[in-house]
Amino acid sequence: MNTSLRDDWFLLPFELRLQRASAKALAAAAILTADESAALLRALNAMETQWVGAPCPDSPAEDLHTWVEAKLIEAAGEAGRKIHTARSRNDQVATLLRMFVIDAGERFGAKLGSLVALLARRAKDWADLPMPMMTHTQFAAPGSAGFWALRYAVALDRIAEAAAFHVSQWRRHCPLGAGAVAGSSIALDRAILARELGFEQPSLNALYDTSMRDECVEWLALAAQCALHLQSFAADIILFSQSPLRWTRYPAAFATGSSMMPNKLNPDAMELLRGEAAALPAAHHHAMLLLKGLPSGYNRDLQCIKPIVRDATAKTLYLCELLQAFVGSLDFDATRLAASMQEGDIFATLRMEQLVREGVPLREAHHAVAARAQGGARPESGGATKLDPLAATTSYQTAGSASPDETRRVADELIRRHGAS
Amino acid sequence: MNTSLRDDWFLLPFELRLQRASAKALAAAAILTADESAALLRALNAMETQWVGAPCPDSPAEDLHTWVEAKLIEAAGEAGRKIHTARSRNDQVATLLRMFVIDAGERFGAKLGSLVALLARRAKDWADLPMPMMTHTQFAAPGSAGFWALRYAVALDRIAEAAAFHVSQWRRHCPLGAGAVAGSSIALDRAILARELGFEQPSLNALYDTSMRDECVEWLALAAQCALHLQSFAADIILFSQSPLRWTRYPAAFATGSSMMPNKLNPDAMELLRGEAAALPAAHHHAMLLLKGLPSGYNRDLQCIKPIVRDATAKTLYLCELLQAFVGSLDFDATRLAASMQEGDIFATLRMEQLVREGVPLREAHHAVAARAQGGARPESGGATKLDPLAATTSYQTAGSASPDETRRVADELIRRHGAS
Amino acid sequence: MNTSLRDDWFLLPFELRLQRASAKALAAAAILTADESAALLRALNAMETQWVGAPCPDSPAEDLHTWVEAKLIEAAGEAGRKIHTARSRNDQVATLLRMFVIDAGERFGAKLGSLVALLARRAKDWADLPMPMMTHTQFAAPGSAGFWALRYAVALDRIAEAAAFHVSQWRRHCPLGAGAVAGSSIALDRAILARELGFEQPSLNALYDTSMRDECVEWLALAAQCALHLQSFAADIILFSQSPLRWTRYPAAFATGSSMMPNKLNPDAMELLRGEAAALPAAHHHAMLLLKGLPSGYNRDLQCIKPIVRDATAKTLYLCELLQAFVGSLDFDATRLAASMQEGDIFATLRMEQLVREGVPLREAHHAVAARAQGGARPESGGATKLDPLAATTSYQTAGSASPDETRRVADELIRRHGAS
Amino acid sequence: MNTSLRDDWFLLPFELRLQRASAKALAAAAILTADESAALLRALNAMETQWVGAPCPDSPAEDLHTWVEAKLIEAAGEAGRKIHTARSRNDQVATLLRMFVIDAGERFGAKLGSLVALLARRAKDWADLPMPMMTHTQFAAPGSAGFWALRYAVALDRIAEAAAFHVSQWRRHCPLGAGAVAGSSIALDRAILARELGFEQPSLNALYDTSMRDECVEWLALAAQCALHLQSFAADIILFSQSPLRWTRYPAAFATGSSMMPNKLNPDAMELLRGEAAALPAAHHHAMLLLKGLPSGYNRDLQCIKPIVRDATAKTLYLCELLQAFVGSLDFDATRLAASMQEGDIFATLRMEQLVREGVPLREAHHAVAARAQGGARPESGGATKLDPLAATTSYQTAGSASPDETRRVADELIRRHGAS
Repeated sequence: MNTSLRDDWFLLPFELRLQRASAKALAAAAILTADESAALLRALNAMETQWVGAPCPDSPAEDLHTWVEAKLIEAAGEAGRKIHTARSRNDQVATLLRMFVIDAGERFGAKLGSLVALLARRAKDWADLPMPMMTHTQFAAPGSAGFWALRYAVALDRIAEAAAFHVSQWRRHCPLGAGAVAGSSIALDRAILARELGFEQPSLNALYDTSMRDECVEWLALAAQCALHLQSFAADIILFSQSPLRWTRYPAAFATGSSMMPNKLNPDAMELLRGEAAALPAAHHHAMLLLKGLPSGYNRDLQCIKPIVRDATAKTLYLCELLQAFVGSLDFDATRLAASMQEGDIFATLRMEQLVREGVPLREAHHAVAARAQGGARPESGGATKLDPLAATTSYQTAGSASPDETRRVADELIRRHGAS
Repeated sequence: MNTSLRDDWFLLPFELRLQRASAKALAAAAILTADESAALLRALNAMETQWVGAPCPDSPAEDLHTWVEAKLIEAAGEAGRKIHTARSRNDQVATLLRMFVIDAGERFGAKLGSLVALLARRAKDWADLPMPMMTHTQFAAPGSAGFWALRYAVALDRIAEAAAFHVSQWRRHCPLGAGAVAGSSIALDRAILARELGFEQPSLNALYDTSMRDECVEWLALAAQCALHLQSFAADIILFSQSPLRWTRYPAAFATGSSMMPNKLNPDAMELLRGEAAALPAAHHHAMLLLKGLPSGYNRDLQCIKPIVRDATAKTLYLCELLQAFVGSLDFDATRLAASMQEGDIFATLRMEQLVREGVPLREAHHAVAARAQGGARPESGGATKLDPLAATTSYQTAGSASPDETRRVADELIRRHGAS
Repeated sequence: MNTSLRDDWFLLPFELRLQRASAKALAAAAILTADESAALLRALNAMETQWVGAPCPDSPAEDLHTWVEAKLIEAAGEAGRKIHTARSRNDQVATLLRMFVIDAGERFGAKLGSLVALLARRAKDWADLPMPMMTHTQFAAPGSAGFWALRYAVALDRIAEAAAFHVSQWRRHCPLGAGAVAGSSIALDRAILARELGFEQPSLNALYDTSMRDECVEWLALAAQCALHLQSFAADIILFSQSPLRWTRYPAAFATGSSMMPNKLNPDAMELLRGEAAALPAAHHHAMLLLKGLPSGYNRDLQCIKPIVRDATAKTLYLCELLQAFVGSLDFDATRLAASMQEGDIFATLRMEQLVREGVPLREAHHAVAARAQGGARPESGGATKLDPLAATTSYQTAGSASPDETRRVADELIRRHGAS
Repeated sequence: MNTSLRDDWFLLPFELRLQRASAKALAAAAILTADESAALLRALNAMETQWVGAPCPDSPAEDLHTWVEAKLIEAAGEAGRKIHTARSRNDQVATLLRMFVIDAGERFGAKLGSLVALLARRAKDWADLPMPMMTHTQFAAPGSAGFWALRYAVALDRIAEAAAFHVSQWRRHCPLGAGAVAGSSIALDRAILARELGFEQPSLNALYDTSMRDECVEWLALAAQCALHLQSFAADIILFSQSPLRWTRYPAAFATGSSMMPNKLNPDAMELLRGEAAALPAAHHHAMLLLKGLPSGYNRDLQCIKPIVRDATAKTLYLCELLQAFVGSLDFDATRLAASMQEGDIFATLRMEQLVREGVPLREAHHAVAARAQGGARPESGGATKLDPLAATTSYQTAGSASPDETRRVADELIRRHGAS
């Protein structure tokens, strides 16, 4: 249990970059000679070639840091025995996790950008395809499949913006050089370390750096929030695909049959998306439980956040890819959608607003239309007020409404922002 | 259960502002005459005077929105019956929660600012007061009480920055006018609504607005993260105050006696801070559970997020105030701190780094010092390497270290940023 | 913050019983004279009459225990100053919470018993009312509304059994007399305390008693599991009530209209049941977060579990009552159910099993039926294999199946067990 | 994503037992001939030998069930094509998870039994070793290391009892034969299936069986509660091992050094125990999130509970083993404990109770002793009231107190119950 090489292994690419930065800063501080520094950099390049992407070796090493240091001593002798000067595994691992999370946040942002752009393009494709919008899981008002798809583009665009903020905040301060808890009496220039690793400046307080895992918690909170929208998308599709609606042409590559019921083709991929997404808020909860009750200063409990963050990151990126593939394949059955537009008296609000435009106060118009609806008169079968579904959506007049033009306007704005990604 | 006036009541101040904005936008759209609009604004002002701050009235009203509307009809007749035009309770409540959360985020940011400034001032007061820093709850290396206090100033400063980001994101888009799910066929200018309520622009997609509670989730995640640091502060103080250390002069106003043990004076306020702080990540978890599994479009489940957000907000602000009061009263026992500096061989790292400065490779210096330490030689009692605690802290050379100068430099930077708050 | 009278108030009835037990045990130990004991019992009876059910008084008392003790001193003088002998607030509050949870568990068990009996009766009412059963939210196979209702009777019956186990475990050991942390040097007979309070025996280890809140955690876990089934019931009803199915005659008393959409009647009570149920697993999470990281011995953090348990208990019992009322009012639309039985080719499994009964290996029969189904042949429109829905359900042959007889058999078994409750 | 062989693999031993039970029941129903059944049982035995314990093979099979069925068709031809008769993967996986959880619960119960017995033996070893007991993380009253160890024996004994209850409840009803959702029209005798798999009887409602995962949730809740005590044990040891106390002789095999601080030997195993234990409540939360919002009937989301349960089970059993090994190696430093007994005025309660025994009312005795304590008079240095630590613990008179005799009595009771395990 005390050894963690296997759990640390995913951090190897970041560890090698970190060691390079250390070699340069120690050379600048004259702890290493130019030759020693060069030898270390060569050894690190060789390790990069040999080990990054390779499976974790069997080794008695206590952790990734001691394994790398042993390799450096093997390759570069005395220089290897100096590489750990003015640092501790405490600031090392804090730095690695921040580097990992920055990388994760950037990859996440890029995937979200693609998703937003794709969803916005589908929103335009489907802007004129009428679909009943639901509230309370009941048919409520006319909308379009495009307006529905745009709901997710808008949600993920917001999350992409938050991801960009967090990445910029994580890049602010480099923990490396914080040492075990209080810094070092060796005059190492931490600005070199920060610059080499892509941070703006050295961190401000060594105790803070080594005590907590704010960037991990923030990243998990962001992933959890994204998961909320992913699972809502899945829940929508499952609902749209069920027996009596069958609005979707559910792509067969994302479905599975039944072993007992020959009649079934189930929306498994969306159920798995909804199910797997639960892992992301759970990972955030897990991290909170882990960190709760810890006093300041590094505690070994922090080791346990590594697999949480590693697995949640992999799952988040995978679920984004799954959604991307699914949205690319998804299509709708216009005939069945059209049939559904005649259910649930969904034009009632528009009829009520027609009365309002004719001067009836809203509250009276509401009563009038409600009285007819509850009296059982289904006005659509009546004639005069029968509305063409597409005409109904074009009658929306407000910004952000289900009007096809408005869907296209917003989609274009999002495509402009993310189209290149 | 279907009535929610009591649970909605905390939103009243925001509801009245929202109604004012509606009255103005409806007047601009000629749905209301100038007289009707003026009558409504007068009625809203009267309600503000009468009801804001008052306890929730007994009323059969289904919710806050219908209660206010009934009052407006009472006061302004026909105009009241028009006020709900082109909107729904769905966009109304989405807007109220966003307004509430913006207000909460701003108040939170102000409280954090004060806390950061106070902690930074205490950090300067205590920069020269040596204190053993711990890792693994073990004495590890020399630091100061100021360096310790600064750890929290730095943590809360980061959270204040995130709060500012979120508030600015929440202010971006105004949900009002999204209607029930798809907008309205009445040409209301949503830009007026947005401007009147302090938002930048109307929101982009009515389905998105009414389906989720992103701002609530984000606010709760932020509060949860703040809670992590609050409870860590409490855990530190409880540890520092325990029988064998007694580093703190624990302020009596924050302590309680024992009913059975006359010898006890317990750090109750810090235990309660640690305990109450657990409510904030729990509130975030609660919201995630609530929202999980919901399809798009307003679902009445969303009603249940109101007390979560209301209570978590009150608790967050209260815990910040408690910490502010506590930090203002806290003091340390310099004699007992000095005694502890002689425990745990905490100068070992500095001795090792002394060897490094003399040219010994780090890994050899580590072995040399470790061998002596584990051999039982407590070098502090030896003589040659005996270090004065304050001298030890001044020997730190790196940015962000426990050096008193560095503590003062960072504290000054934080005071500059938050001093006015 | 250090005062808790208001948060303790719900424990008053248990506190008074506890004080009575103390008076008797102290009399038996000759700490109190017979007169003193009698005076205390009189005072406690008077307090019971005056205060139980009354709102919490304004008082500067630190907590409920000191408030009661002050009242006893007021009423009974010297005897009151002896009542706290050989106990501490630490064992007192541990005992009160256990008493509260025993009471909650018993009330919960009774409510579950009523619910099981009612659901089983409805299962019998609806055993012959065919309804499509879903898997993957898709129509899957013939069943009945009774078979569906029975699913919840069976689930809640299991939970009632677990509740009974927990109550019996909670009754095992009485914490009172554990003192602050280690017992007392006064020879009080804890068996008297246990017996008076309805426990089997004194607890085994005073440190255990005062450190944790196992009964609270167990109760919250049980409530959380019950919540899973409650919210699943709600999710089912919401699904069954949606526009294209309208299987339920959704009782109007549990619905709400829309402010913007005159056509809507929404299943609000079920959405609120689903939403409110999320509070119960959240309460369990909250308790786990609160307790995590605490060392042995009473810590004031434990104070914070009181409102969690109080509110979760009230919510659990309330949601059971809501479900009881709802199930009593629920009815189905047989015509719409019959129409749905012709959707989704739900007789396919039965046709496949017909082939199996004729000797075709299952896997071949599956392929044969699946090939027809996916070829688009809807056999129901064919003729030969057309099945009457009720005949389909009576064809089930296995124990626990959707056969009406089997539904009645199991329902009767559950009614026998819970009918009296 | 739609294939799950790898995630299912841990269920293989249970799957093979299940297939055997199916073969027997199908033979009894004359769906299989005696020869076919024998051929299947031979094939299953061969698979047991070849595959149980082996790594998961590379295979395009959709899941474990189809992989096993394909193997059976390969080995036994026609008979293999009949094995899936009157069942579905839905009831199959429900049965496998219940079998797995029964097995986990039994292994857990056995490990808890060993732990309780070991802790009780250590409690007897240390019954006469005085140790200050803490409340509020402050020295509070005299106790012993044995009394402290007994706190965990008592806690785990309760959990063992709950585990036994749950296992007996899980064994009650066998889901196999519930089919996809509603049973089967083939007259299979489910009592044979139940008996062969070690259950009492067939389950009562096929929809219930295939909809939920109660046994998983119950098992995770139990593991979570155990985790609370494991982490509290770890928190205690970390506290006892810290620099100023050093009460433990912390076993070196469970410690780690520091890379920067040669003076450090850290209680890593206990920090990891505390940290890893957080995974168990997190797993429960994860399962609740996963299940929330699902309607009745199998949903593919349920697939995602498998790795949660598998990993939580492995972790729970591992942490129990870690604790077993640790408790076996743990020892205390009697000298340092004795020194601590003179800190914090921990005899004050006993002095107060001495006054009570002399007739002073408790509340007056409390004031008298508190006044002296807060006046700074440390009575231990006074003389008259100085107490020998061991004598102090023997002065306890109540059941369950820290008296050495009482510790031995309770320990013996627990050893009698669990000694053979």
